[in-house]
Amino acid sequence: MTQPTTVSEETITDVAVARWATAHDPRTAELMTALVRHLHAFARETGLTEAEWMAAIGWLNATGQISNPKREEFILASDVLGLSMLVVEQNHRFDPDATPATVLGPFYIEDSPEMNYGGDMSDGLPGDPLYVHGTVRSLDGTPVPGAVLDVWQSDADGAYEAQLDVDEARLRARYTSLDDGSYCVRTIAPLGYAIPMDGPVGDLIGRTDIRPMRPAHIHFMLAVPGFEPLITHLFREGADHLDDDVVHGVKQELVVAFTEHGPGPTPDGGHRDTPWLEARYDFVLQPT
Amino acid sequence: MTQPTTVSEETITDVAVARWATAHDPRTAELMTALVRHLHAFARETGLTEAEWMAAIGWLNATGQISNPKREEFILASDVLGLSMLVVEQNHRFDPDATPATVLGPFYIEDSPEMNYGGDMSDGLPGDPLYVHGTVRSLDGTPVPGAVLDVWQSDADGAYEAQLDVDEARLRARYTSLDDGSYCVRTIAPLGYAIPMDGPVGDLIGRTDIRPMRPAHIHFMLAVPGFEPLITHLFREGADHLDDDVVHGVKQELVVAFTEHGPGPTPDGGHRDTPWLEARYDFVLQPT
Ligand SMILES: [Fe+2]
Ligand SMILES: [Fe+2]
Repeated sequence: MTQPTTVSEETITDVAVARWATAHDPRTAELMTALVRHLHAFARETGLTEAEWMAAIGWLNATGQISNPKREEFILASDVLGLSMLVVEQNHRFDPDATPATVLGPFYIEDSPEMNYGGDMSDGLPGDPLYVHGTVRSLDGTPVPGAVLDVWQSDADGAYEAQLDVDEARLRARYTSLDDGSYCVRTIAPLGYAIPMDGPVGDLIGRTDIRPMRPAHIHFMLAVPGFEPLITHLFREGADHLDDDVVHGVKQELVVAFTEHGPGPTPDGGHRDTPWLEARYDFVLQPT
Repeated sequence: MTQPTTVSEETITDVAVARWATAHDPRTAELMTALVRHLHAFARETGLTEAEWMAAIGWLNATGQISNPKREEFILASDVLGLSMLVVEQNHRFDPDATPATVLGPFYIEDSPEMNYGGDMSDGLPGDPLYVHGTVRSLDGTPVPGAVLDVWQSDADGAYEAQLDVDEARLRARYTSLDDGSYCVRTIAPLGYAIPMDGPVGDLIGRTDIRPMRPAHIHFMLAVPGFEPLITHLFREGADHLDDDVVHGVKQELVVAFTEHGPGPTPDGGHRDTPWLEARYDFVLQPT
């Protein structure tokens, strides 16, 4: 006859750790046992009640159920808890002279259309015309040709394609750096925005003084063989909320002036009859 | 102009804790700041990679999306991680002589039909006839009348109503203790069972040597004014997996013999012409 094993408040953590330590893959065992330990430590330290536990279960359910390929509420939760930024930091300890990484965010969409140097990814949308340009180079200054710059941003109202019901790619495109490492993105100035507040993450934020805002920025994902992939933003200098970004993504090195220009020649080699903005930034990639 | 604030790998945890400490309700602030600290400690200790982080996001999404009122995959996750049992333990530090609590499990359904003393909640389902009976009493031995015993269990194949597509209540009912504290449940012997293995929790369990089994048991939820509510099980003595219950719910005090009887009088005052099983158990409630 099997002898019953009584598990107690004192022994439950060790018992659960021992179980998950049987994971066949050593890394899985490491992650799962650490998860059990930290989860239990959280519950013990706070004296988590059953009502709170049930509320957490309900919150997790709601977060999963509001999510879809265009709304990643768990990523948003990770972002506002600072977990996303921590994971980015500890996985991208680049040279201080390299362009730092920041959070991916929940609005990235794959397979954006390819554009040539100076191609307009704003496609007639209202907003202040903006040229983002510069070079992609290595830590030693060597230009990096053939780097793919996958770019996405909010519109002049702060909305991403992923939040709208549109059929075509909107304010996102893939550019490729030229032989001299140069790139040029023609777009409009993005607006800062509030994270979605109508879901379980917004419900939590609403119970705090946290301001649910992000400063105006453009997302970039750079990939080219021989270098570490880079996921980052460029922030608009002087924008609101550079000091309290709700997802903790700001770095001084990523803040760029959007310089105002009157009518005249533009960085893509063209000419405008109306005012426009210029953001100059050189991406410095970390060799692998 | 707003001065940008750079958050680094060293400062991100303190920054996030300070943000969530602004929660208006002090308990919410306590819970959220502890969550941030433990979540970050987990990520730092394991050196969580971005691929692992993304896999976790995907797992959370899948767990939320497979859940519905009849399938609580996050509760199951909490159960197999030992969190549910820990929360039960630390919220029900009863007198050692009181009936101990154990996990609720994911299969509870509210509003079960009311039954009289000896009422048959198995309603003709195949299985070994079983009478569970005894008294409900206080720590000092006083009988407790009017206690509602909300009972639910698996069938002789180990399946719960919540896992089946049925229209009527199945193997669940609410009984009330009589003036002398006595109760009698007529049912069939439950079978131990595997937890659902076709979802994200099963996927994790499948990567370990953890046996996904629960020993045969019947769930009870007892409520009566003047006493602590009690959620518990009675386990069948000699059942498989009393030593490695996947949800860590076993306590020696909750293991009860299912005694075999030949044809003859039964605890409900009736008589059977075929063999039957008897489980005697006195529930001892903790006064509030
Ligand atoms: Fe963004
Ligand atoms: Fe059960």
